[in-house]
Amino acid sequence: MLNSIALIGGTHGNETSGIQLITNWLNTGLPERFESLNVTCALANMAAIEANQRFLDEDLNRQFTAEKLAADNPAREAQLAKKLNAKYGPKGHSATDFFIDIHNTTSNMGATLIVLEADDFNTKLARFVKHVMPEANILVEDEKSFVEHGYFCTVGKKGVMIEVGAQPQGVLREDVYQLTLTMAEAILDFCVAWNARSQELANLPPCEAFRLGHEVKFPLDENGKRKAMIHHSLQDQDFTPLLPGAPIFRGFDGTDFVWEDDNETYPHFINEAAYHKLDVAFATAERISF
Amino acid sequence: MLNSIALIGGTHGNETSGIQLITNWLNTGLPERFESLNVTCALANMAAIEANQRFLDEDLNRQFTAEKLAADNPAREAQLAKKLNAKYGPKGHSATDFFIDIHNTTSNMGATLIVLEADDFNTKLARFVKHVMPEANILVEDEKSFVEHGYFCTVGKKGVMIEVGAQPQGVLREDVYQLTLTMAEAILDFCVAWNARSQELANLPPCEAFRLGHEVKFPLDENGKRKAMIHHSLQDQDFTPLLPGAPIFRGFDGTDFVWEDDNETYPHFINEAAYHKLDVAFATAERISF
Repeated sequence: MLNSIALIGGTHGNETSGIQLITNWLNTGLPERFESLNVTCALANMAAIEANQRFLDEDLNRQFTAEKLAADNPAREAQLAKKLNAKYGPKGHSATDFFIDIHNTTSNMGATLIVLEADDFNTKLARFVKHVMPEANILVEDEKSFVEHGYFCTVGKKGVMIEVGAQPQGVLREDVYQLTLTMAEAILDFCVAWNARSQELANLPPCEAFRLGHEVKFPLDENGKRKAMIHHSLQDQDFTPLLPGAPIFRGFDGTDFVWEDDNETYPHFINEAAYHKLDVAFATAERISF
Repeated sequence: MLNSIALIGGTHGNETSGIQLITNWLNTGLPERFESLNVTCALANMAAIEANQRFLDEDLNRQFTAEKLAADNPAREAQLAKKLNAKYGPKGHSATDFFIDIHNTTSNMGATLIVLEADDFNTKLARFVKHVMPEANILVEDEKSFVEHGYFCTVGKKGVMIEVGAQPQGVLREDVYQLTLTMAEAILDFCVAWNARSQELANLPPCEAFRLGHEVKFPLDENGKRKAMIHHSLQDQDFTPLLPGAPIFRGFDGTDFVWEDDNETYPHFINEAAYHKLDVAFATAERISF
């Protein structure tokens, strides 16, 4: 039974769709059909929201490893993480059965559900979401165990992220807002069905999903400066198969860089603004049946 | 004669297309056909570029009024503006004949040339750019005199802005980069023709342009919080006619707000991230022959 659910926006202060959805539901209450659920709606990083920035000192959504939660880091998000862990966790012995954290991205990822485990709960959740929202993408980041991730949602016993794009930082687009709303409602509909031990959940067929591979960096010159940008034929093509030999970067000198792997991949987080400083161009994934 | 031309990027530190174009041209030099021109390429706000933010303390591109340049404001951009005014101006008695400042926007404005005067020079420039780049938009902001504007480009004897979108802050898109490059080259081609007293410039026909009207704000509740977002049918429709009765906002309660003016308008800067704090939803314009 999911006796306590947290639904969170504003973990990143310039990701407006989750902030606005939580603000609206705090004002109006959740839709009536979720009244059997015990859902806590909240905004995570009020100072970053006020500043309209992703974070003030450090990325809040990377602070929730056991190591970082135990460390003595004066960064404002590190301090905030300890308070949030006490409130919604503590991690590993959590008072929150299911934690849903809402994000948006400048990448054209549509409505993506990010799950961190391939267990019975997450598999049924993913199949249910894909069933009621066929346009959704399922991204599986299970390259390490659930608790080893530093994401905020891992303070819950179970946790997932909603990631919707493309939306510039600090901008609210209606299309992104509506996709965020639809996916949040789909997840809560699943919670109702899970708590009711609905037979429907056992009967859902496997769904398409994408399992995270690795990060691909921009080509840099000897001074560490970028010498290319995302190729126009790759831009906005998140989760579209990238074939061997297809262009991925356009050099500032006009030369193209191609995908040199032997296999196709499913790129995502293409040209995400928040990964700018890290020179991450996109992430790879393999297509799986989940 | 245009004896000194300034071509500037990074007036806003997270507007990457101008920053990258200037960086590239500082590395490679300008294309050969511009070798007769005396062009100074430079990045304006290095600290903001390093921080990947629009500005650190205040918007640099609003600091160049006579009043602000004379004031004693400790904000870093106010101090920087004085140095830049000394270097490229001083405003009103400028050493720079023509100042081109490169920007980008989260609004879907395509490649827009912003001129601040409807005089012979700017008219011919606009007609030339529209002639060689028909997809360009011409935006005329002559609601006040050239020197009364606070824009950086007004430190030159003549000054314009390149404004290209849609591009999220902190992201470089190839399509936006290429439009920026094409428009910068078109303006420099004009400078060559102007200095050659080319008869071609006198023979250019009037072109379509848009004259700035006023700003339209988001609907706010009694607490000053937004109660609506840009309607999906208006989003990305910059410079497309907005007709009386057409929806402009979608309320969070599901109600629509419509354009109540008696006349059509040409909205632009729709949902621009930088105007978020000001609650500016878009700007209006009338379509003119220029």
